[in-house]
Amino acid sequence: MVSPAVSPVTAIEDSSAAVGDALMALIARLYPLPRSLTGRGVRETLAILGELIPLTLSEVPSGSPVYDWEVPKEWTIRDAYIKDASGRRIVDYREHNIHVVGYSVPVRATLDLEDLRPHLHTLPDRPDWIPYRTTYWKETWGFCLSHRTLESLKPGSYEVVVDSSLTDGALTYAECVLPGATTDEVLLFTHTCHPSLCNDNCSGMALATLVAQALAQRPRRYTYRFVFAPGTIGSLTWLSRNEDTVSRVRHGLVLTGFGDPGPFTYKRSRRGDAPIDHIVEYLLERTDGPKANIVDFSPYGYDERQFCSPGFNLPMGRLSRTPYGCYPQYHTSADTLSFISKEQLEGAYALLMRILEVVDADRKLVNTCPKGEPRLGKRGLFRSTGGTGVSNREEAMLWLLNQSDGERSLLDIAKRSGLDFTLIKSSADSLMDCGLLVDPA
Amino acid sequence: MVSPAVSPVTAIEDSSAAVGDALMALIARLYPLPRSLTGRGVRETLAILGELIPLTLSEVPSGSPVYDWEVPKEWTIRDAYIKDASGRRIVDYREHNIHVVGYSVPVRATLDLEDLRPHLHTLPDRPDWIPYRTTYWKETWGFCLSHRTLESLKPGSYEVVVDSSLTDGALTYAECVLPGATTDEVLLFTHTCHPSLCNDNCSGMALATLVAQALAQRPRRYTYRFVFAPGTIGSLTWLSRNEDTVSRVRHGLVLTGFGDPGPFTYKRSRRGDAPIDHIVEYLLERTDGPKANIVDFSPYGYDERQFCSPGFNLPMGRLSRTPYGCYPQYHTSADTLSFISKEQLEGAYALLMRILEVVDADRKLVNTCPKGEPRLGKRGLFRSTGGTGVSNREEAMLWLLNQSDGERSLLDIAKRSGLDFTLIKSSADSLMDCGLLVDPA
Amino acid sequence: MVSPAVSPVTAIEDSSAAVGDALMALIARLYPLPRSLTGRGVRETLAILGELIPLTLSEVPSGSPVYDWEVPKEWTIRDAYIKDASGRRIVDYREHNIHVVGYSVPVRATLDLEDLRPHLHTLPDRPDWIPYRTTYWKETWGFCLSHRTLESLKPGSYEVVVDSSLTDGALTYAECVLPGATTDEVLLFTHTCHPSLCNDNCSGMALATLVAQALAQRPRRYTYRFVFAPGTIGSLTWLSRNEDTVSRVRHGLVLTGFGDPGPFTYKRSRRGDAPIDHIVEYLLERTDGPKANIVDFSPYGYDERQFCSPGFNLPMGRLSRTPYGCYPQYHTSADTLSFISKEQLEGAYALLMRILEVVDADRKLVNTCPKGEPRLGKRGLFRSTGGTGVSNREEAMLWLLNQSDGERSLLDIAKRSGLDFTLIKSSADSLMDCGLLVDPA
Repeated sequence: MVSPAVSPVTAIEDSSAAVGDALMALIARLYPLPRSLTGRGVRETLAILGELIPLTLSEVPSGSPVYDWEVPKEWTIRDAYIKDASGRRIVDYREHNIHVVGYSVPVRATLDLEDLRPHLHTLPDRPDWIPYRTTYWKETWGFCLSHRTLESLKPGSYEVVVDSSLTDGALTYAECVLPGATTDEVLLFTHTCHPSLCNDNCSGMALATLVAQALAQRPRRYTYRFVFAPGTIGSLTWLSRNEDTVSRVRHGLVLTGFGDPGPFTYKRSRRGDAPIDHIVEYLLERTDGPKANIVDFSPYGYDERQFCSPGFNLPMGRLSRTPYGCYPQYHTSADTLSFISKEQLEGAYALLMRILEVVDADRKLVNTCPKGEPRLGKRGLFRSTGGTGVSNREEAMLWLLNQSDGERSLLDIAKRSGLDFTLIKSSADSLMDCGLLVDPA
Repeated sequence: MVSPAVSPVTAIEDSSAAVGDALMALIARLYPLPRSLTGRGVRETLAILGELIPLTLSEVPSGSPVYDWEVPKEWTIRDAYIKDASGRRIVDYREHNIHVVGYSVPVRATLDLEDLRPHLHTLPDRPDWIPYRTTYWKETWGFCLSHRTLESLKPGSYEVVVDSSLTDGALTYAECVLPGATTDEVLLFTHTCHPSLCNDNCSGMALATLVAQALAQRPRRYTYRFVFAPGTIGSLTWLSRNEDTVSRVRHGLVLTGFGDPGPFTYKRSRRGDAPIDHIVEYLLERTDGPKANIVDFSPYGYDERQFCSPGFNLPMGRLSRTPYGCYPQYHTSADTLSFISKEQLEGAYALLMRILEVVDADRKLVNTCPKGEPRLGKRGLFRSTGGTGVSNREEAMLWLLNQSDGERSLLDIAKRSGLDFTLIKSSADSLMDCGLLVDPA
Repeated sequence: MVSPAVSPVTAIEDSSAAVGDALMALIARLYPLPRSLTGRGVRETLAILGELIPLTLSEVPSGSPVYDWEVPKEWTIRDAYIKDASGRRIVDYREHNIHVVGYSVPVRATLDLEDLRPHLHTLPDRPDWIPYRTTYWKETWGFCLSHRTLESLKPGSYEVVVDSSLTDGALTYAECVLPGATTDEVLLFTHTCHPSLCNDNCSGMALATLVAQALAQRPRRYTYRFVFAPGTIGSLTWLSRNEDTVSRVRHGLVLTGFGDPGPFTYKRSRRGDAPIDHIVEYLLERTDGPKANIVDFSPYGYDERQFCSPGFNLPMGRLSRTPYGCYPQYHTSADTLSFISKEQLEGAYALLMRILEVVDADRKLVNTCPKGEPRLGKRGLFRSTGGTGVSNREEAMLWLLNQSDGERSLLDIAKRSGLDFTLIKSSADSLMDCGLLVDPA
């Protein structure tokens, strides 16, 4: 099968550069906020996104049952530090919000270094970076710091303060729903729970927001639902409260990590052959730039774990650049604004817009004149002089008429014919205009 | 899987050479006739074929509805020429019947070269050859000529005459039906509408005729139906008037272009895995000579477009040597008797006879003694001394007994066992003779 | 997919070396006995095996109908020889029991060499070896001898004696049934009809016996049935009298030829994708030593022919080292104790034990908490600090929970995840212990 160059993505209203600037600016606003599973940082984040797109917020009380889990207490962190004997803050939450282990319980104590040591997390191989750690489901506390700082600590006693509280509150998530011609849905999920880490996942939140903003301006066949929620407990909470919606999801993607320098990675749905899998793979094969990675589903990673659990088995893949855990900056203080780039974000925006364009356009049509070929010439769709070859557009129409038996989608036909999807789509439109193809749905 | 050499095709009564001579002689008679979609040339052609095989002719009146089409007016062409100022015929239908564009409307006019020019068709890359063009579905006129002639034309006025008529008449097609033990049919279609072009399609018509003549002398399981009709509108017309027959078609082939120097090309049915696809591919893999091309179905080409439209989706492929459009002589005056050869026609005859032999023999049998192996020795079908190996024939019987559960055909068994189809067939005959295999149909 | 090294086979109670010694000792006892389809040699063989495992014997009278066959007369051989003119026994049954063709009818005659000649079987290519031949189904007689002996015979007359009888008696077979938690069965078949040939099939009988002995000491999910019977007529006889049992067979193997120096060969079941096929192939890919051969089913060989006939189509493959007919010693006097080795037998024992371990463990489980991931941490099955990777055991549990929808077996999950079966199995046990996985059967 030939793989013709894909037609350029021309449908984006904003120029690429403007999109890239907007993505970088939004990420820069989101970066400093102290996000966690719950609490102020998440609410401030969603307020910023809500300036750009219409968001509906949900607050689910602590203790609410969520399948095998329950919504945790809300965590508030005000300050956290370690002071040495001289009273100097040698580890200071105010300098970087990942210095404190997420969901640390409150503590005020003076400890010898040897007693403090088990509460300190570092990266010996990256001695200048601070790791990011959480303790959502076990009541303890800890600090993350550079290994170089740890090594500089002298024996003696240290004052340790975590000025936090764990109280009954709520888990906050937000949805942006863009209604379409049908109530069938396309679900796009991105996690909101990581604090000051840029690629993971300010980039995913920003991309989802600007893509939602662009889609809001367009006619839509499907209803598009963007969900902004914390990882794991957030997607579980959303699922548990939206099982009716889940039954209408036809395609979906988990979005995360789009600003790093790597090529795209697509992780297939658990089904492995869902339409979204075919669409993303088709486009990635035809996208300029470094070759994308296509990986099979596995039950670890981000929230595809929940959407693709056997009780849901949704047709959802995960789109990112370099996957989580596969770049050294992952879950460290090195995941900064300078780690990501405008150009990589622009490329991700163009790809996701193109994916959603094909998602919206792809469908299974039926030839209303299936016995023999209809006479295209009398409808002005075919050359009149016989004996010569056919044009690409005529070829596309012949393929569409031959294959449209309700079992094959436009993308299937594009792949089988080797013709570009855009040509197949516009030819299908012509054939629908004259009634030779219809959508049975 | 081993691929043993196929057994030689010994079943052809006539020697190969005699068949080749007969094919060339028949093509030589057919070549000069002025065929088109309709009219005298087609009727004269069918009269010649009718000398060799029993043909039933159908005349379908102009204007008859045929699905999305209708039967066109009948075209009669008596003369056509372009005269220069000196009165010399510089383009003359009497010299070659492709000089006039097929279905040209009548014209008598004197035109300046610049006004005449849009009606003239040439092949700049092949300046000595005349192209072949038609205008079946648009009422206009034109001439085809060598590019060298065109370039020699001087500015000035030319007398143009097309002495044709387009009148209510009929579309003519012919069928040769050879009844078999069952009313299930094998459909062989070849187009009759091309004028003085040898490979396309005097060769197809001649091959179909001589193969029909040979099959008429043999016992047949299937009923064989050879259809001789014009391309597109002819196959559509036949389909529209034979939907009952269509429902009985179990295998089929479109036949065209067998005399050119190229290797065989088989184009799969739309289904892609119909029995005819497996049979032809199996034999082509085992046929001597240059490697054959196997190509997937596409919805352009010859009448397989109609037979494989989604409303019929017949198990029909297309057999040819070099496909249409893939040799420079295609649809030009260079497709002459000297372009084709006796040897290539002989090879095509041998292959088609062998295909139909396997088509007729292939079937799904059922083992009447399916629990354990039956005792072949007591039926004289197996060696009596144990401890040694098995012969090929014994092996064939064991495969047949093991695999004949009504789901696998003799060809499936030949392929899985790596044993020659002829051996499988004759071993199946032995097992049917003693009742161990039966045909459930 | 990665192929991790398989976990060592640690489950064998006896040390490998002890098993090898025991196998060699048992084979040495079985080797001299004059086995055939029926008679004394078989009964003595089964008596020896019955010292080690509980055996139920069946005696099926001569003449009993068995599908297309009937149980043959019982053959008793007391003596057989050819004497030359000097009275010297030049061929002597007392020296090797394969000197007489199996099932030879009685004869006492003096024949010229030329009349004797058609009754003599040799191996010209292996002039010192005696071939093994039978004439079960044709009443005749013959001798097998070395080609060198044959060539030394001078023209003249020879005294020929076969002191045998063919009388109404019985066909003897034995079963060792080890009941399990379910009445679903694993069927292991090995043939008993070959006389003094070590690899074929004293090795198969010995291996089956010692494996049965070991399995008898263990908890078993399946019921295991070991059948010791003559080839072809023996498996047919067993099948004809056990059709109810047959319907409960979930997995099976024909066992033969484990002592020769070659690598393992597994011949797939007729189905080709039965669970036993997947299990054996999975383990052979991960077994140390020379690469095993995996071959597709074919309807000749040993008793898999009967078990995989279309009327039964059992999920049974055949396990051996070098297949029958593929080593020169096959069916000759060279198949002696020195042809086989303790080490090869040990390897076969380890493999078969491991196969049965996986057969017994493999099953399709169901996640009782299929919506989203259950919270493993609160059950002590997962690390408590977030932000780091997962361990192999955690990974195994995630795979099990994600894939256990009742359609995928533990082996399927091991293969898809690339994790070792042993890890998958023990992780599944943990998840069953806390009720997250259940066996729906």
